[in-house]
Amino acid sequence: MESYKDRFTDFIHRLQNEICQALEAEDGQAQFQQDEWQRPGGGGGKSRVMAGGQVFEKAGVNTSAVYGQLPPAMMQYLQVPHDQFFACGISLVLHPLNPWVPTVHANYRYFELYNPQGGLADQWFAGGADLTPYYLFAEDATHFHQTHKTVCDQFDPAFYPRYKRACDEYFHNHHRAEARGIGGLFFDYLRPTAPHPADFWYRFTTQVGQAFLPAYRPIVQRRKALTFTAAHKHWQEIRRGRYVEFNLLHDKGTLFGLRTNGRIESILMSLPATVRWEYNHQPTPGSPEAALLEVLRQPREWV
Amino acid sequence: MESYKDRFTDFIHRLQNEICQALEAEDGQAQFQQDEWQRPGGGGGKSRVMAGGQVFEKAGVNTSAVYGQLPPAMMQYLQVPHDQFFACGISLVLHPLNPWVPTVHANYRYFELYNPQGGLADQWFAGGADLTPYYLFAEDATHFHQTHKTVCDQFDPAFYPRYKRACDEYFHNHHRAEARGIGGLFFDYLRPTAPHPADFWYRFTTQVGQAFLPAYRPIVQRRKALTFTAAHKHWQEIRRGRYVEFNLLHDKGTLFGLRTNGRIESILMSLPATVRWEYNHQPTPGSPEAALLEVLRQPREWV
Repeated sequence: MESYKDRFTDFIHRLQNEICQALEAEDGQAQFQQDEWQRPGGGGGKSRVMAGGQVFEKAGVNTSAVYGQLPPAMMQYLQVPHDQFFACGISLVLHPLNPWVPTVHANYRYFELYNPQGGLADQWFAGGADLTPYYLFAEDATHFHQTHKTVCDQFDPAFYPRYKRACDEYFHNHHRAEARGIGGLFFDYLRPTAPHPADFWYRFTTQVGQAFLPAYRPIVQRRKALTFTAAHKHWQEIRRGRYVEFNLLHDKGTLFGLRTNGRIESILMSLPATVRWEYNHQPTPGSPEAALLEVLRQPREWV
Repeated sequence: MESYKDRFTDFIHRLQNEICQALEAEDGQAQFQQDEWQRPGGGGGKSRVMAGGQVFEKAGVNTSAVYGQLPPAMMQYLQVPHDQFFACGISLVLHPLNPWVPTVHANYRYFELYNPQGGLADQWFAGGADLTPYYLFAEDATHFHQTHKTVCDQFDPAFYPRYKRACDEYFHNHHRAEARGIGGLFFDYLRPTAPHPADFWYRFTTQVGQAFLPAYRPIVQRRKALTFTAAHKHWQEIRRGRYVEFNLLHDKGTLFGLRTNGRIESILMSLPATVRWEYNHQPTPGSPEAALLEVLRQPREWV
């Protein structure tokens, strides 16, 4: 049997291909450009970015598989005593052109640590996906959550509520007392402990990963042809500002990557193409824009 | 003789009026709107923002004078043992529409701490100004620095090199290994210690503050009527992304304000109106855009 390391590395590359192919098909115009990079300490990654599409204004789908010596800052961050590591994962952020289509983020990753003799000392799976609409369609939110819940329920009915709540807690712009979006799933440190062996978490994480396209693609298909005005685009750009605020102020992955000299352009590919900040911008009470804010201020149960 | 508290509070309000008046005159179209706010724990501020001008796309000139009990996080941040404080200051960020006109930031502030009996336990002045051009005009950079050096030299010839260097060190986007702009002055914790009484630092800080308009206004006048293309604007928006990155990732004042529940809209008025992130954007070698980057990667002596 192949190691989880190899199996998960295969998985992220297959998923990267599958997702990029689907997104190019949805877009019908733009194509992903790939940059392969090597990490001096060991390993590397494949960054794929699509820009200026008719559906996706900016989309990044990155994989990386890195290994070697963990910097002290990362040992502290992960709260682990071992300094030899392997990590692989896929991370994506899609910023659609059309404000009726939500932005989405997802990542699925696997981590191993080794003792000084090279033996496996620790391992865990992690990941999740979350949706950031500019206008709220309850049926889209429900579809996104239901698709994820269906996968979770095949493993344990306690998982969806637990990881949905963790997602709401994590993707929160504390300084504005509002959520980044309408959530999804967020899970971390899924270690093989009784009654769940590593294989259980491998299957869970990869099946959640395979649910990404079924969760997101139908929403794109429903909304991508809707016409929009400059006012809708303006609101999208204002909200994208909040996305930038979250990623630069609160996102642990982003901050950690920047502090440990990760590849800047791969880390910051998550930032939207065009963004706007206006002083004290407030949507008109009763407007669709105000309706979105209400949901962001009070996370909702969607299924 | 009035207290420094009162004198500096008067100073920042006079300077706010003077600067806003000058900027409205330079703009010739837009006007500042004022929001007055109260701080629940004591004091408040006046935020003035001008948006959509023909010269200034977004300009904020804020004053605040606050007092009361210092939150524990702020005592730790300031590394002081006292929890009763007074702080007042003026802070401004000007984002011109025209990419030939540089963005500028300045702030001048005064701080007091009190012992449990209410006596003055500590006091200091702080501030500075720095210029962020999108295209480099050496004569503009030299004028900005020379104006500040002239003021500094009236107090001590060691000041300009010291505070110029501190500015280069502070306004640095470490994650990109480049400066935010071409610098200026940055000074902090100017306490009354021999041979310099509080009055010396009061005069120094207020005279540096009064040098703001002479340092910046002539640059605006020289550049504001130059014609620009969509490509110039595009580059300005890319560079504004770096400005946002600095303010959200590195700027201590911004991060501190957000963590201590400051008034969000006053803190984030520093962010530009329209901003752009493109994956792996690189200017053409030999272009004016590339020339700017060279200077940002290697701070220069301008006088």
